Amino acid sequence: MTGYTFPNPLPCAKPFAAAKGQGRDTMKIVGFEANNGLRLGVVEGDAVIDLQAADAATPSDLGEALRASNGDLKALADLARRAPASARRLLAGLKFGFPVAKPGKIICLGLNYLDHVKEGPSRDNIPKFPSIFFRVLTSMVPHLQPIIRPRVSTQLDYEAEMVAIVGKPAKHLTLANAIACIAGYSCSNEGSVREFQRHTTQWGMGKNFDRTGGFGPWMVSADELPPGGKGLKIMSRLNGNIMQSDNTSNMMFPLAETLVYLTKGMTLEPGDIILTGTPSGVGHARKPEPVWMKPGDTIEIEVEGIGVLSNPIEDEKA
Amino acid sequence: MTGYTFPNPLPCAKPFAAAKGQGRDTMKIVGFEANNGLRLGVVEGDAVIDLQAADAATPSDLGEALRASNGDLKALADLARRAPASARRLLAGLKFGFPVAKPGKIICLGLNYLDHVKEGPSRDNIPKFPSIFFRVLTSMVPHLQPIIRPRVSTQLDYEAEMVAIVGKPAKHLTLANAIACIAGYSCSNEGSVREFQRHTTQWGMGKNFDRTGGFGPWMVSADELPPGGKGLKIMSRLNGNIMQSDNTSNMMFPLAETLVYLTKGMTLEPGDIILTGTPSGVGHARKPEPVWMKPGDTIEIEVEGIGVLSNPIEDEKA
Repeated sequence: MTGYTFPNPLPCAKPFAAAKGQGRDTMKIVGFEANNGLRLGVVEGDAVIDLQAADAATPSDLGEALRASNGDLKALADLARRAPASARRLLAGLKFGFPVAKPGKIICLGLNYLDHVKEGPSRDNIPKFPSIFFRVLTSMVPHLQPIIRPRVSTQLDYEAEMVAIVGKPAKHLTLANAIACIAGYSCSNEGSVREFQRHTTQWGMGKNFDRTGGFGPWMVSADELPPGGKGLKIMSRLNGNIMQSDNTSNMMFPLAETLVYLTKGMTLEPGDIILTGTPSGVGHARKPEPVWMKPGDTIEIEVEGIGVLSNPIEDEKA
Repeated sequence: MTGYTFPNPLPCAKPFAAAKGQGRDTMKIVGFEANNGLRLGVVEGDAVIDLQAADAATPSDLGEALRASNGDLKALADLARRAPASARRLLAGLKFGFPVAKPGKIICLGLNYLDHVKEGPSRDNIPKFPSIFFRVLTSMVPHLQPIIRPRVSTQLDYEAEMVAIVGKPAKHLTLANAIACIAGYSCSNEGSVREFQRHTTQWGMGKNFDRTGGFGPWMVSADELPPGGKGLKIMSRLNGNIMQSDNTSNMMFPLAETLVYLTKGMTLEPGDIILTGTPSGVGHARKPEPVWMKPGDTIEIEVEGIGVLSNPIEDEKA
């Protein structure tokens, strides 16, 4: 684990090498836009199999597809395999949508990597439970869409996070069975407007500015990754410079524990997403000066074995 | 304003008398269930005009209807007026849905009445900005549906709140124009599981247990109430005993100020709802002992000129 005091900026980094499973039979499901509508696809090398082109009855929202199959992705895999050549599109130039078009809940964890707790204002108050807050979908953009720096603040910060996507309904989970409700994993930039986040004790405002976060590029099926998404390198790069670099094994509340906690109170439903917290190295804590995202920047979030979520930064239009 | 130290319980109270406009041409829009589907209706005395029965193309979600009309309720009023006698249903026995079937955002304010701040753990930290957090729809039930006491905690508390329902898209509002984006008002019981709310600094978990809050019974159109919903009595009654009793004029951040703040960052959209905070008198702060809601109780939230939201309490099924 790299610490939170590393100098700024670090040298450029290359994306992680292909992880276990990748290039073999990893199933990547992508939301995209075509013909004025949302569609669902399966990524195969440099192509996408358009599942609506293969069967018009396929839901365009992965959450709906998961609900219909009780979390089993086999039907979508079979459909992709049977799809006619005419259903293939080039991945290059695709207009990405969210991996789940309309998540019922966007559940976020704060303060889930100890080094990140220590770099922030909560450093003397190590949480004993997962710190839960929510985002709304209007605060997020898909892969490659611009993240927007708001008119009212320049303190736009990045947060690299692994996302777990719920595949089937779950309540009162146990550590032994928790992970089975997860259909797959994605990446998020849990972008935050820090000065508004600190206005009160509650982070809801600073975490929900329009189009300040990212979610994508796709969902990688859970069976292609270690259980609970453990042991994966996680990184953010701003204009190619590494800003955060850690490993998902360093979560204070690993995914299984978080799922057990959440489902004491909440029924998780297909298509719900859980953002699992960010490592140290965020912009507000950088030395000697904070680093904020600004127009012209490109921010990338990478989680090993999942992919790279990349977004340019633009200013809110006047 | 009644204080937060009043004895417990207070004597029974009768519902507020009909407010300005009521019985004249107040427009109340209600969501309800019939024929295995959600429907939209207009309340007229002891009847409901079923808008889908009058015109099958009417959306079942008030948010959609507001989006289609840019917040103008005239089309729904006209439709109700033209509806055939066969579209009338009895209000008694109606299975209520939410006033907005699927709000895009459920925005909540904490700590918005000073006496409530003073009765809680934030008493030495008076907020300088609205304290914003979010609820998800699975944490709410409609009028008359049971609120569920969870298996894992007995600390189920009530919170009487006025709800503002957004009628048209809004961003960067000013104090002068803010209120115009509001289509109408409703009531909420912003029910909270206190011990989980206090697990960390963030309230998201304790505020989002399944079916622990209420939203309803209907939306009263904004033109029938004072601008911004100011000057309305607000009350909660547990088994008929007054627990909270205050006036919406005592909000620290009145609705217009809140809308200006929210829209610095968030685009409000038709059907979004804003829960405007609760007065003093909540259960956790009662003397000599806290009061928690328990199976067999009935909790009512009333806002003058809007109506009474009533929910029985039941235990989560084993």
